[in-house]
Amino acid sequence: MHAHSYEAAVAYGPGESLVIEEIVVDPPQKMEVRIKILFTSICHTDLSAWQGRNEAQQAYPRILGHEAAGIVESVGEGVMDLKSGDHVVPIFNGECGHCIYCKSENTNLCEKFRVNPLRSVMVNDGKCRFSTKDGKPIFHFLNTSTFSEYTVLDSACAVKIDPKAPLNKMALLSCCISTGVGAVWNTAKVKPGSSVAVFGLGAVGLAVVEGARAIGASKIIGVDVNPDKLAKGQTIGITDFINPKLIDKPVHEKVNDIIEGGVDYSFECAGNLDVLREAFLSTHDGWGLVVVLGVHPSPRLLPLHPMELFDGRKIVASTFGDFKGKSQLPEFAKTCMHGVVKLDEFITHELPFEKINDAFQLLIEGKSLRCLLHV
Amino acid sequence: MHAHSYEAAVAYGPGESLVIEEIVVDPPQKMEVRIKILFTSICHTDLSAWQGRNEAQQAYPRILGHEAAGIVESVGEGVMDLKSGDHVVPIFNGECGHCIYCKSENTNLCEKFRVNPLRSVMVNDGKCRFSTKDGKPIFHFLNTSTFSEYTVLDSACAVKIDPKAPLNKMALLSCCISTGVGAVWNTAKVKPGSSVAVFGLGAVGLAVVEGARAIGASKIIGVDVNPDKLAKGQTIGITDFINPKLIDKPVHEKVNDIIEGGVDYSFECAGNLDVLREAFLSTHDGWGLVVVLGVHPSPRLLPLHPMELFDGRKIVASTFGDFKGKSQLPEFAKTCMHGVVKLDEFITHELPFEKINDAFQLLIEGKSLRCLLHV
Ligand SMILES: [Zn+2]
Ligand SMILES: [Zn+2]
Ligand SMILES: [Zn+2]
Ligand SMILES: [Zn+2]
Repeated sequence: MHAHSYEAAVAYGPGESLVIEEIVVDPPQKMEVRIKILFTSICHTDLSAWQGRNEAQQAYPRILGHEAAGIVESVGEGVMDLKSGDHVVPIFNGECGHCIYCKSENTNLCEKFRVNPLRSVMVNDGKCRFSTKDGKPIFHFLNTSTFSEYTVLDSACAVKIDPKAPLNKMALLSCCISTGVGAVWNTAKVKPGSSVAVFGLGAVGLAVVEGARAIGASKIIGVDVNPDKLAKGQTIGITDFINPKLIDKPVHEKVNDIIEGGVDYSFECAGNLDVLREAFLSTHDGWGLVVVLGVHPSPRLLPLHPMELFDGRKIVASTFGDFKGKSQLPEFAKTCMHGVVKLDEFITHELPFEKINDAFQLLIEGKSLRCLLHV
Repeated sequence: MHAHSYEAAVAYGPGESLVIEEIVVDPPQKMEVRIKILFTSICHTDLSAWQGRNEAQQAYPRILGHEAAGIVESVGEGVMDLKSGDHVVPIFNGECGHCIYCKSENTNLCEKFRVNPLRSVMVNDGKCRFSTKDGKPIFHFLNTSTFSEYTVLDSACAVKIDPKAPLNKMALLSCCISTGVGAVWNTAKVKPGSSVAVFGLGAVGLAVVEGARAIGASKIIGVDVNPDKLAKGQTIGITDFINPKLIDKPVHEKVNDIIEGGVDYSFECAGNLDVLREAFLSTHDGWGLVVVLGVHPSPRLLPLHPMELFDGRKIVASTFGDFKGKSQLPEFAKTCMHGVVKLDEFITHELPFEKINDAFQLLIEGKSLRCLLHV
């Protein structure tokens, strides 16, 4: 359990190519685990952190990455539920298991380990477990920092999964699949036979589609300005497609043409407030629910008037699909293993870890859903 | 079943004293009922309609009023569930029983008879059932128009209640009690032992307090700028009182001083967006729910940023306490009869119907909660 040298992809500044280099990874401290990452992929949250759009997030050098799967190398003092050799999925929204939030049935936002894009150090001691060869600390990201051969996590952020589960696909459970499918199953609790509209068909939006298909939604309307999303969306399960650029009316009116009165549920995965308003209005009055998944960097407030709430539409946000990671993800992983949720369509590219900058480019250009990096 | 002359209080213009005069009340048409009103009271919605704040609502002459209780005088063609002599409570948010909304478990907004402050005529034929002695039509208000010795309602807007129930108190079930208690029991589904904050201690706010007390809330924080509300609030059930004018910090911080982390539920009964924001922030992150009851005339949008929803707080509006009036109010009336919900404290004044302008004044000056008018 000593510090070792391993390969990692280090971010040195906003938008600068990641540098593959040898770094030092400290041993796990109390209640922490050190993980050998086998697979990792890139999510839009990594992209915006890399681009440094949010000043407050700028901490360099830093190791990004939060979608991954790996094997426990060693565990720190006090860790009882994980041991060397366990197969694990890192989660950016951890679960300590004993705070008032973790004990509540109504939230998956742990007091200490909930998702926090501004945190760049370990929770326990406010320090880094990574350093450069010359001893400079390297900051963490989203409780996970998976763009590294080895990483150190709080044990609250490492979920043990069935060793028979294929680790390459399980990496998707770290973020996009859990976020999208969970928003349908846990947050919205979509009922079989009901209708759904999904705004933004990136990996999370398509995971929403997959969740809706798996639960037996009767209509799944996909909305995206990229015409290439039609084919992919249909492969996964959309029944109708709307390209806002190709219609001469607001999207919610088009949704009404497809389903009179609107859909039962809509999911906003675009991170755009005008889209959010269309998603809201696309739902049926009386009972429509819009679930917000998109990250909204604009300072603009919600484009809704309070009296509009009296039409009976509801709005909620969903973090990590409302899964309590440590307690519920192992079962969800099995559900995925058994093919109830299909993961194959989400991995569109595979590359060796060293090509991580190419993988970023594929995501930026909208060519990939997920490019799986083999570490 | 002919047209008859009866006394009514007629509004002829915004803010003008109501005129007590003889009017003609037509017999009920198909699926309508004519009601003899025995008791009626005044709600803030009547007040703002009388003041004509909303241009679109200005239809004169008009009979206002929506909180009342009375007896069926006659029924129109096709009315099967009501007959002459039945004790009834008018409801401004009707229930036809067979539209897709009425058939849904998730809403009490009937397609045809939901609350609509802009409607001033009968739903069936778009005409008025009231006219002046010289034959000029008098407009309706909120499906009810109870400031009249007799009124005509759609049967969807008349709820038959137990003939043993005291009609004077049952008038409160037409609006404030059902709205407030229902918001707690049906909309928020407040759990025993949980904590509640109520913003605005008018009749609706105090009905929220009563609903929370009856269900066994452990903490009920009342918030009002009127110091007189403290004593009344305590009589009904508040455990703590905050007067925003007398503290040097935002209300939500004061709520946090009383309950660490905030309340489980808050209710906004003030119709003010800054208050709404405080109500939102006063709830506990992770699971807090703010229920909007206030009418918000300002064109301002919701003062919430979309990312704030990711803290796990939810916001919903509640109409008529989410009661389906025809199917659920008879049982609720029994619950009130049995003293589970206490109504006495809400009737602070009683006057003969002819003194209705005095009753308006009492409400305007904040002296009355409800002044019961004996018709
Ligand atoms: Zn992600
Ligand atoms: Zn916790
Ligand atoms: Zn009212
Ligand atoms: Zn109906």
